[in-house]
Amino acid sequence: MSKERLIYLPLGGAGEIGMNAYVYGWGKPGHERLILVDLGVTFPDMDTTPGVNLIMPDISYLKERADRLEAIFITHAHEDHVGAVGLLWPELRAPVHARAFTGHLAQLKLEEAGHSADAVNIVGAWPEAVEAGPFRVSFLPISHSIPESAGLVIETPAGRIVHTGDFKLDPKPGVGEGWDPALWRKATEGRVRALVCDSTNVFSPHPGRSEADLVEPIAKLVAEVPHMMVATTFASNVARVKTLAEAGHAAGREVCLLGRAMRRMIEAAIRTGVIADFPRTITPEDARDLPRERLMLIVTGSQGERRAASAQLARGGPYLGLQMAEGDTFLFSSKTIPGNERGVGRVHNAFSEMGVDVVAEDDRYHVSGHANRPDLETMHALVDPEVVIPMHGEHRHLREHVKLAEANGRAALLVVNGAMADLSGAKARIVEHVDADRVYLDGNVLIGALDGVVRDRIRLALNGHVIVNVILEDDEPLGEPWVETFGLAETGRSGAPLAEVLEADLGQFLMRAERKTLRNDDSLEKDLKRIVRKTAENEIGHKPEITIVVSRLEG
Amino acid sequence: MSKERLIYLPLGGAGEIGMNAYVYGWGKPGHERLILVDLGVTFPDMDTTPGVNLIMPDISYLKERADRLEAIFITHAHEDHVGAVGLLWPELRAPVHARAFTGHLAQLKLEEAGHSADAVNIVGAWPEAVEAGPFRVSFLPISHSIPESAGLVIETPAGRIVHTGDFKLDPKPGVGEGWDPALWRKATEGRVRALVCDSTNVFSPHPGRSEADLVEPIAKLVAEVPHMMVATTFASNVARVKTLAEAGHAAGREVCLLGRAMRRMIEAAIRTGVIADFPRTITPEDARDLPRERLMLIVTGSQGERRAASAQLARGGPYLGLQMAEGDTFLFSSKTIPGNERGVGRVHNAFSEMGVDVVAEDDRYHVSGHANRPDLETMHALVDPEVVIPMHGEHRHLREHVKLAEANGRAALLVVNGAMADLSGAKARIVEHVDADRVYLDGNVLIGALDGVVRDRIRLALNGHVIVNVILEDDEPLGEPWVETFGLAETGRSGAPLAEVLEADLGQFLMRAERKTLRNDDSLEKDLKRIVRKTAENEIGHKPEITIVVSRLEG
Repeated sequence: MSKERLIYLPLGGAGEIGMNAYVYGWGKPGHERLILVDLGVTFPDMDTTPGVNLIMPDISYLKERADRLEAIFITHAHEDHVGAVGLLWPELRAPVHARAFTGHLAQLKLEEAGHSADAVNIVGAWPEAVEAGPFRVSFLPISHSIPESAGLVIETPAGRIVHTGDFKLDPKPGVGEGWDPALWRKATEGRVRALVCDSTNVFSPHPGRSEADLVEPIAKLVAEVPHMMVATTFASNVARVKTLAEAGHAAGREVCLLGRAMRRMIEAAIRTGVIADFPRTITPEDARDLPRERLMLIVTGSQGERRAASAQLARGGPYLGLQMAEGDTFLFSSKTIPGNERGVGRVHNAFSEMGVDVVAEDDRYHVSGHANRPDLETMHALVDPEVVIPMHGEHRHLREHVKLAEANGRAALLVVNGAMADLSGAKARIVEHVDADRVYLDGNVLIGALDGVVRDRIRLALNGHVIVNVILEDDEPLGEPWVETFGLAETGRSGAPLAEVLEADLGQFLMRAERKTLRNDDSLEKDLKRIVRKTAENEIGHKPEITIVVSRLEG
Repeated sequence: MSKERLIYLPLGGAGEIGMNAYVYGWGKPGHERLILVDLGVTFPDMDTTPGVNLIMPDISYLKERADRLEAIFITHAHEDHVGAVGLLWPELRAPVHARAFTGHLAQLKLEEAGHSADAVNIVGAWPEAVEAGPFRVSFLPISHSIPESAGLVIETPAGRIVHTGDFKLDPKPGVGEGWDPALWRKATEGRVRALVCDSTNVFSPHPGRSEADLVEPIAKLVAEVPHMMVATTFASNVARVKTLAEAGHAAGREVCLLGRAMRRMIEAAIRTGVIADFPRTITPEDARDLPRERLMLIVTGSQGERRAASAQLARGGPYLGLQMAEGDTFLFSSKTIPGNERGVGRVHNAFSEMGVDVVAEDDRYHVSGHANRPDLETMHALVDPEVVIPMHGEHRHLREHVKLAEANGRAALLVVNGAMADLSGAKARIVEHVDADRVYLDGNVLIGALDGVVRDRIRLALNGHVIVNVILEDDEPLGEPWVETFGLAETGRSGAPLAEVLEADLGQFLMRAERKTLRNDDSLEKDLKRIVRKTAENEIGHKPEITIVVSRLEG
């Protein structure tokens, strides 16, 4: 019989920045006991996923082996790590382990999806550990842009794995535990089989900066603002929200939080003891009555999201009774995530049109939550693993991370979504490939990325839609064909309405068509489509999507 | 009678980076003689303009006054300045003036659109001048990222206007004239009524760098590459293409240009004498036979455009017989324009998957073509105008540029697309507003941005499409309703096919409907749509676009 093995299989997160889901297993091939680390979402865009609500990893591999799944571990509460717990947990039904703040938010996700929050088990930091089949897992605190982020120390029969989670090396992150190299050294000392490591900022050449570096610049900016001060950042960046709020108070302003996600995060942080001393805030109702120079709003929407508070304020009207005005200042205490530039630009320009002074993309007021290139090298050196396995990156990040490790004389292995690595041999290597695509939450339905539904929507958006209605009685046309167009120019080259030109051409065809053509649904539809395509291309230069509706009556 | 006035009216470019079109006029209000500076396009995106081919300014204002349009001046040959000449010139039919390289490319645009190239008049540099009604216009050479870029010195009865065009202050731009402050001082000395000035890089705090700074780093990179070298940049950046080609030759490589736009630009530069000494190139056919370490490709597609050479190579198969392989190097000698990050990322990741080493977003291998903040201040000081009018920017850039001028004690005026400024009074001010929206080339049809055609396509992409077919005979349903869905999940909450659930609900309604409902087209359609919306929302959580086709027969 084959020997037991230790496997690593990313189902999401190794090939994108988003929807993290990493599987580890131990046992004989096909009989491994499994654990899952993180279960996140990624966000749709108009280019590739119009109309989609959320994107999640395809966890078919785990569903089919749910009886072998011992536990789910969530490293931290960012949506790309915890966002799919509410939707996908019912397909797995394994216990969910997390630290208090993360666990609290995972519980809310489960409850919102209509499930009991009992599946979530709150775990203390290392050296506390969870036994999960052949695995023993501890949460090792590390700094990131959200409180209570943790790496995982995973003890396995084939040796120890260190899974960093998202991290940066920040000794003073403002809220939550700072980077503690002594703690990490102690918890990871001895042989480490593999370091599975965040790759997000591998292209950033300089050491990362501390959240603490922002306190003074932000305080200075807020103190100098003449009218209303409004700032946005990620709702989950509790330390940043706190820094902003404290700057507001120091400048004699009352602070009002706008946006459900932000209030929810602060509440979660207070309830779980992550922060004890969040500055006093007031409600939008109370804020309305204050002179604007005494007011500071901290709002959601740092990525220009259309429904968030920043975009609402950018529309110009009152939002919850509050309204921007000329002379106000708006601070993006954030970085625009690649792909969101247009949305952020829209908000920025809208504020500019109102005469609001916007401060954006200014390093004085934002630091990244991820380890830069030299910080990754520090982590490699500290953990000193037998192999480095990059995760949390697009292919280019993973590959660059491999090259970085190899340049320092370390073994490294590039493992993308769906590739299963065997970590138990002398040399880690890919041994299998499983399907690891994407699943879309579309409205309230889960659909596969390859189902063609979204592809059809993209085709409608690019090409428009022509609907042809033909009625046949005893295989003879009854009346004229009727055409409706959707998303196409009304008139084209001939100057006549497109629908009428199409109707005329189709009518002519039907009049002349032989009975055997009219009798055969497939060939009739093919002929009608050919005529629509040709006429549309000639009239308007578009090849539309076409739906032919043929109704057959018997006389 | 009212007095004569000097007007400035941007129809495009003052509120976006793209589709530049600036009108100047002199005369009594409503009777001004007009000139147009630039006539460019902007490019569509999936977010806001799916399926659109090109975006152009709405020049209705000029069309209605074409008899008063004296001339069109093109400052340089970038698509956002010359791209609409082929499509829109027929609506204006005024002479087009440009320098040789720009004019040659404008002629090609006209010919491709089926018009004579005779409208284009080639003009030498300042002090040569074109008389155009009350205006006297000279082309004043300035450095930019394309050869023969020019500012315009526009002499008017109300004083001189300096229109910078796109520019940077580069004394050594590689190809074409360098920044020559003595020339500019001489040509603009004395009273300048207004400086109409590029705003693109107003947020870039440091002085711009020279094209010449790239020569050594690029040569060094190319010399060190072990296998095939491939580089991309803007096709129109002739100086960069030349620098890349020379680096290739210096490293003992043969150079092959891939992409129609790039070959066309180099040909235009050679034909018009802009470059005399472009390095020898070989054809793709010849390139195939060379060992890859002796080859350098220079290719189009620096913005990840799907049809350009870089994206074709990124697909992995052979393109014109050439194919990327592990160990090759790909250089983006370019910067990603905001909004194109996803496309560029796709190309980058595809190369990464092939084992190609990609160099991207590296300042050593790219400089911007636009003047940075301190360079703008240099230009303001040199020309010393009575008023600074920012152009070529989104609203945020224009506003920041106004603030920059004002901070230095200068008068400045923010003029956006459609706002008409009177420059003849003591103080420049906005006096009128005209419609200045956008026009889309959609297939081969020009449609207005507000026509709703593209909005319908976006709705189809977000919501999908349901088509309902109902036949009534003598106001009674004949058979069952028939439903087709497009871009929607096939099955929803109930587990039954969505189309069947819709058909059942609609069938029930029709069976029970009163004759007066069935008789009235409007109320019947309204009722049917309501049922589709409700059922679809319940089944799949989407509210689709709906087309109801009711056919009425008489028995």
